[in-house]
Amino acid sequence: MSQFQGVSVVKKANVYFDGKVTSRAVVFEDGTTKTLGIMLPGDYEFGTDTKEIMEIQAGDLKVLLPGETEWVHIQGEGEFVVPANAKFKLQVSAVTDYICSYIKE
Amino acid sequence: MSQFQGVSVVKKANVYFDGKVTSRAVVFEDGTTKTLGIMLPGDYEFGTDTKEIMEIQAGDLKVLLPGETEWVHIQGEGEFVVPANAKFKLQVSAVTDYICSYIKE
Repeated sequence: MSQFQGVSVVKKANVYFDGKVTSRAVVFEDGTTKTLGIMLPGDYEFGTDTKEIMEIQAGDLKVLLPGETEWVHIQGEGEFVVPANAKFKLQVSAVTDYICSYIKE
Repeated sequence: MSQFQGVSVVKKANVYFDGKVTSRAVVFEDGTTKTLGIMLPGDYEFGTDTKEIMEIQAGDLKVLLPGETEWVHIQGEGEFVVPANAKFKLQVSAVTDYICSYIKE
């Protein structure tokens, strides 16, 4: 399915790193939230509150997950999971379009 | 209202100018469409198919509307309207968060 249907969308964007990372929050009928985001090339560190499932729809980036020493390279499509209350690093080398799901456990 | 409710959102982003302008399409129950977009600093020219109402939610930019010789400066919030099948220019000087409504006449 190419669309999320029957959802609410927050009008104002989330803006990080001088706009090099931006996202839009989508709220589902069951109260869960995802963000649809764009990352421009750059190096970033993020922290999680909840568990996050990051689905890469398009892009080129390397991911260093918490506790890991090896970067994972995603070109095109991919997915990775970050636990709650953790930090992870990204090296983005092409415009990256993602969906982030926030999983409350 | 800070959210669009009961809408569909296209998962994949629209990406222009190497990602310096990106947007997400929102489809309403009546079939009308808006995009929620971000523009990073830069100079851009856009063309319209339909009439467009551009609502600036946050940002700093100058707008040259079709047929005009004077740039309009919007800081913070603002709105401008572009007719169908026209070109307009933007000089964006700070990250700009917008809502574009497409008006079929």
